Amino acid sequence: MYDVNQKRVAKVLKKCRQYLNWVQNSVLEGEITEANYKKLKMEIERIIRQDEDSVIFYSLRTTKYSSREILGLKKCGDENII
Amino acid sequence: MYDVNQKRVAKVLKKCRQYLNWVQNSVLEGEITEANYKKLKMEIERIIRQDEDSVIFYSLRTTKYSSREILGLKKCGDENII
Repeated sequence: MYDVNQKRVAKVLKKCRQYLNWVQNSVLEGEITEANYKKLKMEIERIIRQDEDSVIFYSLRTTKYSSREILGLKKCGDENII
Repeated sequence: MYDVNQKRVAKVLKKCRQYLNWVQNSVLEGEITEANYKKLKMEIERIIRQDEDSVIFYSLRTTKYSSREILGLKKCGDENII
């Protein structure tokens, strides 16, 4: 999930969507290989400003012990907004 | 993590912070009992608008298979913003 300056939101989202699925305004999810994960992080670091933006990655090695619940709006299949 | 209308951000954040720790603008984390988790969800549902806002809960039953990485700004101990 990211929290970045408005100027860089579109860029960060676009980059993340190359690898992950968009689930909420600033949240993406997906299966990613170790190599692609490293690549994504490097690419994000080139886009964001270290002193203004923040991007958090949660890595779950298995989904066996995790679950997700959404209250309110569900953003599914919003594939053509950007 | 939440994505709610500006009008309700402070309310949602305040409520979440009664149970969890704030890690990024719209992201909180923490250990929570099953009972408190239910309570939090009920309280959040009373605050948000189902057609405008979205709050996602990821539950990890163990942290053994998960990790977190932050790029950019780390929000730690921002205890007195609200």
